[in-house]
Amino acid sequence: MSKEVSLEDIVSLSKRRGFIYPGSEIYGGLAGTWDYGPLGVALKRRITNLWWQMFVESREDMYGVDSAILMNPSVWVASGHVDTFNDPLIEDIKTKKRYRLDHLLEDAGVENAASLNLDEMIALVDKKNIKSPDGNKLSNPARFNLLFRTSVGAVEDDKSAVYLRGETAQGMFVNFKNIIDSFSPSLPFGVAQIGRSFRNEISPRDFIFRTREFEIMELEYFIDPDGWEKEFDKWVDLSNKWFEALGLPLAKIHQLEVPAEDRAHYSKRTIDFEFEYPFGTKEIGGLAYRTDFDLTQHEKHSGKNLKYTPKDGSKPFVPHVIEPTYGLDRHVLVVLANAYTVDEVNGDKRVVLKLPTNLAPYRYAVAPLLKNKPELVAKARKVYEVLKQKYGNVAWDDNGNIGKRYRRQDEIGTPYCVVVDFDTLEDGTVTVRDRDTTEQRRTAVDKL
Amino acid sequence: MSKEVSLEDIVSLSKRRGFIYPGSEIYGGLAGTWDYGPLGVALKRRITNLWWQMFVESREDMYGVDSAILMNPSVWVASGHVDTFNDPLIEDIKTKKRYRLDHLLEDAGVENAASLNLDEMIALVDKKNIKSPDGNKLSNPARFNLLFRTSVGAVEDDKSAVYLRGETAQGMFVNFKNIIDSFSPSLPFGVAQIGRSFRNEISPRDFIFRTREFEIMELEYFIDPDGWEKEFDKWVDLSNKWFEALGLPLAKIHQLEVPAEDRAHYSKRTIDFEFEYPFGTKEIGGLAYRTDFDLTQHEKHSGKNLKYTPKDGSKPFVPHVIEPTYGLDRHVLVVLANAYTVDEVNGDKRVVLKLPTNLAPYRYAVAPLLKNKPELVAKARKVYEVLKQKYGNVAWDDNGNIGKRYRRQDEIGTPYCVVVDFDTLEDGTVTVRDRDTTEQRRTAVDKL
Repeated sequence: MSKEVSLEDIVSLSKRRGFIYPGSEIYGGLAGTWDYGPLGVALKRRITNLWWQMFVESREDMYGVDSAILMNPSVWVASGHVDTFNDPLIEDIKTKKRYRLDHLLEDAGVENAASLNLDEMIALVDKKNIKSPDGNKLSNPARFNLLFRTSVGAVEDDKSAVYLRGETAQGMFVNFKNIIDSFSPSLPFGVAQIGRSFRNEISPRDFIFRTREFEIMELEYFIDPDGWEKEFDKWVDLSNKWFEALGLPLAKIHQLEVPAEDRAHYSKRTIDFEFEYPFGTKEIGGLAYRTDFDLTQHEKHSGKNLKYTPKDGSKPFVPHVIEPTYGLDRHVLVVLANAYTVDEVNGDKRVVLKLPTNLAPYRYAVAPLLKNKPELVAKARKVYEVLKQKYGNVAWDDNGNIGKRYRRQDEIGTPYCVVVDFDTLEDGTVTVRDRDTTEQRRTAVDKL
Repeated sequence: MSKEVSLEDIVSLSKRRGFIYPGSEIYGGLAGTWDYGPLGVALKRRITNLWWQMFVESREDMYGVDSAILMNPSVWVASGHVDTFNDPLIEDIKTKKRYRLDHLLEDAGVENAASLNLDEMIALVDKKNIKSPDGNKLSNPARFNLLFRTSVGAVEDDKSAVYLRGETAQGMFVNFKNIIDSFSPSLPFGVAQIGRSFRNEISPRDFIFRTREFEIMELEYFIDPDGWEKEFDKWVDLSNKWFEALGLPLAKIHQLEVPAEDRAHYSKRTIDFEFEYPFGTKEIGGLAYRTDFDLTQHEKHSGKNLKYTPKDGSKPFVPHVIEPTYGLDRHVLVVLANAYTVDEVNGDKRVVLKLPTNLAPYRYAVAPLLKNKPELVAKARKVYEVLKQKYGNVAWDDNGNIGKRYRRQDEIGTPYCVVVDFDTLEDGTVTVRDRDTTEQRRTAVDKL
């Protein structure tokens, strides 16, 4: 990524070229929601397929699930979300607009504001004389629960209240017993899921970085607590392999060792994986050793036996868990930010998405040199169909002149543009133009 | 499917073998929600990948999107959902339990009760003296809106009320302009999506057939209204090709031509695709000619221009649309019901899922003949790894004796079980046992 690339550049390209649009845009949008367009869906599908292949399909110790977004509300009582899943909220006393207090503090230069308690935050507001973005005084802050609430059934009362899930993890924990009963796996084993979660963020921001609806790729890896350090290290390595599979330079991925005072009380170790976004170094994923907290809580609240019985007949116990989490939307943003490049070709500035070939929406774009020569068009269609048959993700692009086509394909990250010309009719070779070097070479069609 | 197969058989197998579990089961569930287990996820992924390949990736006229579940509430005003998306609800005056009146009428033998208006239903309740399932009198019915409602932001008032989407279709309509702006496609073209929708069903029932959270594979195919009949016919054909790709016999798929009085007022033609489920012949998908109703409504409510400008410079117009819809959960159920077979092998009853090879969670299951012979185990692992490398979906299954393994693999629909024995060490052949015929033959490993 060139240093000058701004988030606005990425937002603008995403919309212009059909990667990502604001949600419900014709109605002025809905804050914190985004719609993936054709190229964004293609990119997302490549990332999720790669993840599923690497962490589920290729392994023998992994069990995929796809659990419901609406869950029994007791789940969120047991998990602690009903009581503690909240953000500090503060109000502009004049406009009545509400803000996340930790964000206001961070904007005012306070580091790690989210880890402070409410009293500490209030003290800082006074000390630094912090005002609302509109310059007004701020009211006393309060805690605001992030779970979206709705009700099921025909009666709207407390008994029928349910929440949109605030994380996918609980979908794995509540199915722990089902997996044990259906598959009797031996420790260690994991339960994995890709799915949507919802958080009623007070101030969604930074494009698809902080949204109210987002997708998570996550797994709960159940282990014997003896030797958790070694298992944790394995998942650090696997996470790095994953980032490399996406073509991300590890030099840009920072491991933040979360200090004890900032960790969830049940976590014995947490690492945040951070990336240098255009708006700062922030989280892309994380790795947490959650101990036996979740299963123990669910055992207590559900009254069900959530113990694992070792195959050697030794004493049943509640397994511990290591949880690698990867935010899908953040991955999309990181991949786009890492690929976004501005360079100069023959004195002209160009924007090019240097996406790895395994992630690019299209691998090839095929066109005839001239659109008004039926024999060229026919031959180009044949080349297109051969490549489409072979790779699937191949575009037909005969719009505008060849320079415009290259510019368009550069912007959407197509590694190779193939042009069929009169020589193709003679000797079966085509011009292949490389996205990154812009060099052109002639190649036989069957060598592609 | 054998005639005797009941829904309970399918529910039981689904849970036992890890296809589908009741949602939040350890907490007593949440009515109308289901969690997909490892094999259910595998089956669902095969179905969605096939659909995406057939209807999006392989076509040049199709644009995939993935839109947010939370949308600006004006969307649902424009679409008519806020006003008209409701079910007739009636209350047991004693227990205060609520029921869908059309369901009670259908249970009492009234055909097509859902198409009656509220007065007609009340008349039938009186005439047929219909009671609640508990035998009590029923109150006057009312209309109940099916949209789940929640609120975004930190203030809970009407302005912040949003709905969970009741269908995916609106996600395509609101992005019509974005697709036009990014890709300038020519008519006809389609916008496709696979995603979750939510309906606050009063009485969810029949396993994953009628649920409160479900997944839809759907596309909006935009056309010039001239010649819509021909385009409609094409989509009937394509739908049949789709059902065939899933291995469903067309003889079991019925096309119900929905009569004018039962169609949405804006629809000029609707076909329901129905399947013979164990609980009756019901919908699996549908095809509707929605005219220009949706885009015209959104044009009116959003104030945005949603017209298409023909490339020949003729007058811009709002395109019409044909909408094929396929319910993913219903497809899973149909595929399971169609595959579920009970037959007899050597006098023993067995349950076998005769899934087509392209949908089966595993293509091969590999095992050594004996677990306590290291040379057999080592060889079997090699065979397993070769097949896994080649096909991906290959199981290692050395649990229990060979008879139990066959029974288990039959129940999850694995077409072939491969057994490595002492002859394998000599001549490189293995025993391949066929799921459907139970016949065994010897084959060289590299011929698999």
